[in-house]
Amino acid sequence: MVTRLSHFFLRTLREDPADAEVTSHRLLVRAGYIRRAAPGIFTWLPLGLRVKAKIEGIIRDEMTNAGAYEVHFPALLPREPYEQSGRWTSYGDGIFRLHDRKGADYLLAPTHEEMFTLLVKDLYSSYKDLPLSIYQIQDKYRDEARPRAGLLRGREFTMKDAYSFDYTDEGQDASYQAQRDAYERIFQRLGLEYVIVAADNGLMGGARSEEFLHPIAVGEDTFVRSEGGYAANVEAYTTTAPGAIPFDGIGAPVIFDSPDTPTIQTLVDHANTHLAAPASGIAGPATDGATEWTAAHTLKNVVLALTHLDGTRELVIVGLPGDRDVDDKRAEVAFAPAAVEAATEQDFENHPLLVKGYIGPWSESGPVLGEESATGIRYLLDPRVVDGTAWITGANIDEKHVHTLVAGRDFTGDGFVEVANVRAGDPAPDGSGPVELARGMEIGHVFQLGRFFAETLGLKVLDENGKLVTVTMGSYGIGVTRILAILAELNNDERGLVWPASVAPFDVHVVATGKDAVAFELAERVSAELEASGLDVLYDDRPKVSPGVKFGDAELVGVPRIVIVGRGAADGQVELWDRRSGEREVVSVEDAVARLRG
Amino acid sequence: MVTRLSHFFLRTLREDPADAEVTSHRLLVRAGYIRRAAPGIFTWLPLGLRVKAKIEGIIRDEMTNAGAYEVHFPALLPREPYEQSGRWTSYGDGIFRLHDRKGADYLLAPTHEEMFTLLVKDLYSSYKDLPLSIYQIQDKYRDEARPRAGLLRGREFTMKDAYSFDYTDEGQDASYQAQRDAYERIFQRLGLEYVIVAADNGLMGGARSEEFLHPIAVGEDTFVRSEGGYAANVEAYTTTAPGAIPFDGIGAPVIFDSPDTPTIQTLVDHANTHLAAPASGIAGPATDGATEWTAAHTLKNVVLALTHLDGTRELVIVGLPGDRDVDDKRAEVAFAPAAVEAATEQDFENHPLLVKGYIGPWSESGPVLGEESATGIRYLLDPRVVDGTAWITGANIDEKHVHTLVAGRDFTGDGFVEVANVRAGDPAPDGSGPVELARGMEIGHVFQLGRFFAETLGLKVLDENGKLVTVTMGSYGIGVTRILAILAELNNDERGLVWPASVAPFDVHVVATGKDAVAFELAERVSAELEASGLDVLYDDRPKVSPGVKFGDAELVGVPRIVIVGRGAADGQVELWDRRSGEREVVSVEDAVARLRG
Repeated sequence: MVTRLSHFFLRTLREDPADAEVTSHRLLVRAGYIRRAAPGIFTWLPLGLRVKAKIEGIIRDEMTNAGAYEVHFPALLPREPYEQSGRWTSYGDGIFRLHDRKGADYLLAPTHEEMFTLLVKDLYSSYKDLPLSIYQIQDKYRDEARPRAGLLRGREFTMKDAYSFDYTDEGQDASYQAQRDAYERIFQRLGLEYVIVAADNGLMGGARSEEFLHPIAVGEDTFVRSEGGYAANVEAYTTTAPGAIPFDGIGAPVIFDSPDTPTIQTLVDHANTHLAAPASGIAGPATDGATEWTAAHTLKNVVLALTHLDGTRELVIVGLPGDRDVDDKRAEVAFAPAAVEAATEQDFENHPLLVKGYIGPWSESGPVLGEESATGIRYLLDPRVVDGTAWITGANIDEKHVHTLVAGRDFTGDGFVEVANVRAGDPAPDGSGPVELARGMEIGHVFQLGRFFAETLGLKVLDENGKLVTVTMGSYGIGVTRILAILAELNNDERGLVWPASVAPFDVHVVATGKDAVAFELAERVSAELEASGLDVLYDDRPKVSPGVKFGDAELVGVPRIVIVGRGAADGQVELWDRRSGEREVVSVEDAVARLRG
Repeated sequence: MVTRLSHFFLRTLREDPADAEVTSHRLLVRAGYIRRAAPGIFTWLPLGLRVKAKIEGIIRDEMTNAGAYEVHFPALLPREPYEQSGRWTSYGDGIFRLHDRKGADYLLAPTHEEMFTLLVKDLYSSYKDLPLSIYQIQDKYRDEARPRAGLLRGREFTMKDAYSFDYTDEGQDASYQAQRDAYERIFQRLGLEYVIVAADNGLMGGARSEEFLHPIAVGEDTFVRSEGGYAANVEAYTTTAPGAIPFDGIGAPVIFDSPDTPTIQTLVDHANTHLAAPASGIAGPATDGATEWTAAHTLKNVVLALTHLDGTRELVIVGLPGDRDVDDKRAEVAFAPAAVEAATEQDFENHPLLVKGYIGPWSESGPVLGEESATGIRYLLDPRVVDGTAWITGANIDEKHVHTLVAGRDFTGDGFVEVANVRAGDPAPDGSGPVELARGMEIGHVFQLGRFFAETLGLKVLDENGKLVTVTMGSYGIGVTRILAILAELNNDERGLVWPASVAPFDVHVVATGKDAVAFELAERVSAELEASGLDVLYDDRPKVSPGVKFGDAELVGVPRIVIVGRGAADGQVELWDRRSGEREVVSVEDAVARLRG
């Protein structure tokens, strides 16, 4: 049935909403697609719902092609399964919790791993039942601290989440690949550029984890990529450690006075004034050829405080080249599930052996940092701090540093840690060249969960030999409402939205202009013919609205193909208007219909 | 794409679920349509989701035909709008409430009147924008005290709720009629018998309110209907008051001793032993021709306690013929929004003038019941207690009653009230004959809300004269998941479900039997051909499953048309099996495909 604007529930707005920070939010509200109901919670108006349904349709199609079956879990779930997995607690403030009238605990599910696992456990018991892939398209909830950017980070949002179940690792690889391929087809059909980046595989113990990122400036994720094809988000980037350097013949460590040098920069300035020029490469390849002291010659020791799941607080010191900083996201992943923060004044007071601004691993009387040292504080090194590299670092005495302090000879760490920031030009770990940094927005995630949930919740099946084996799972998510917002973010101009045909709320927007009944009759006929041939038609039949307003609305709403029926109607002429290119062309009505159908 | 049982996510169960009270629940779980997640909260498995989608498709179709546009509100909503309408409080324990991380109050919406009203207020402002009908299909939440009967009374359930917006009463009538017509078409397409009954129009002040009830023994609603076409739920039934009776010449009231007669039955026995036989019709038409005293000659005075919204408690006494009882549901509606219960011992202690078992409106020293009486307690009469009717009732003295107490002469009420139970044989109020009582299940409700929400939330538009007028609204609900359950309740036999074609999860179920590759090849071809012609095919391609198990599953799952490909496959013969009639017919494969397509 042709949708008539004279009756359709649509009101376009002239003003940008006051709370819109990003283009997609601004345009989706102005063009009548969504409306705010509460912070991070939106009402879907007819136009928005139509686009959402188109995106969901494409996803369903490709899930079916990938052999996945649709199910639907409740949004309101009891505490027990999440208690069993430990996530009732570990979600912290991030979820909505509630009681029912009997006082039983419930949550609004942010994801459904537990429920999928238990459902399959409930119904399946044999290797013959596997492989299985099931998915749902569902409204999910997260109690975001700062809901923002419209649909890009909401508190109620729609996701497609799929899970695969296999009893062998080879099976899981195949299931993973099938979903990964489906994701590529989905994003291709949506016309949405994507980069598949290696992602951290978290605590679940699975092997592969990849994110589909859409490269976009407003993206919250930073990722790195090389020309040779490497791509990873910064959390998953791994540092290529240089080879060890022989330290035969390097002189002994020398303590020197360094008044007023609590920062790396003041220390470097001091060294260049008071020390002899450095030899090349003494702090590894990064200082090759340096004729002056640089931050890269110094070893920075950053004191971090971890809070473990059981609530205990532990100090950890990270030693990294002075030209690097601790990257918060990489630290978060490196130390998960513990929470990380900078050490506080109180922490320093509790450890008087740490001389703030002059901390180092070594002293003349023995090691200062490390589990076996005077402080007993765990000391982790950046992978670049290989044996034989020589550093300027704190001497653990106020206003004194030490130089020619050689790793592996004068100090050792308790292990290595990947927390240093990644920079453009850093080498891709696969040898495919230097990386560049880019911003992206996560639009999908394929993830081998492995056996974590199956083990925790007891999902086992009998294998060919009648032996109980734990099932291995994959998790595959796509943010439906986020994708809609990104498509709006990408497809617009100063006059409004310009939808790709695959997700446009209507296929054709027919605009009748003028006061001539002939135009309205012809527009009516064109609309009916297009609709009859299977196209969705929005017909602007409003009788007393000026062409300017109608064209403005058409541009704002963003249906890609517009037919204007006006002045030439009596001669059977209409105008075809391509919303994206702006081109208009006068053609016969028969031609117009044929081309739109084609 | 043909759905293959060898991969499909389905596990039929041999045992009935322990908690299933009704057939639909039992079969939907056993046949793999739904699975319990929590009390009154279900997971939808692929088969169930397909049936649900078919029902939703029919509803969407007819909403579109009725000119309604689809929107979608959040399930998680802030308190404010519900505070404004007063429902945050009046919902009591019936809804799920929660806080977000900032402590703001939210609810899981049980209905969305407030949000629809505010959305239209937000976007529309002129009579030119109206009429408007918008709807959503949405998961709703009610914290039922006793979730039961599977999907029939759940805590999470899917509804279609539509609202119409008009600025004139005539407009509202047209919008109402359009939805009412759509409902008739929906239920016809679903093959679901319905009775449209007059319903109570509640507190909102609207004019029309009708329920679509499906007549079914497990139904929770009692309704009445006459052969002449009257139908109403018991809450909406109105008593036809007889005409007043002249009371000239009737003797004065006579107090008489009636020891040990605190109940109507003991009183009637006493009267028949000690009083002269009654004259005909003295207590109205109900006692015409009676030669003995009956309960219908007595006036029963029932003490009720109302709790008003502001928490105050008020006693009310209802005078009704002794052969009637107070119907709880009718009392609930009659006194809404106050809550009603029987008076407690404490209430009687607080009113020593009420002599329990011997309460009546009259005493020699003056009125005892009524706002102007000695007790000051409001006294409401059943409509049958018209002026001139003469009663035996309590004399307000222990073990004494009074007879020949004439309404309108010796006592009056503060008004009339419709709380007496309705009985088979009572007259339909429209004169269409005696009513019978039946049980039904509400499957839809069309309801003129009138201006309650628009007034409360400030939804006004400018009319043709530039005057602000309050919008009038209609509310139209259909329970999607409840309809699915009722269809399952109706369409089954001892072997399983038997879906109507309009909502069956698949159009055809193809079963390959035997070990002969020819059968599987032919079944494969038949499935592909049927699917290619637009039918949804479930193909049982399981290689090592016996025909018995396959047929049992087919019967349990309930796809109405089954094709068996087995023994005759080599000769191009298949069997067409009609699930409902049980008839099987051997036909050529070409014939089978042609007939299934037809």
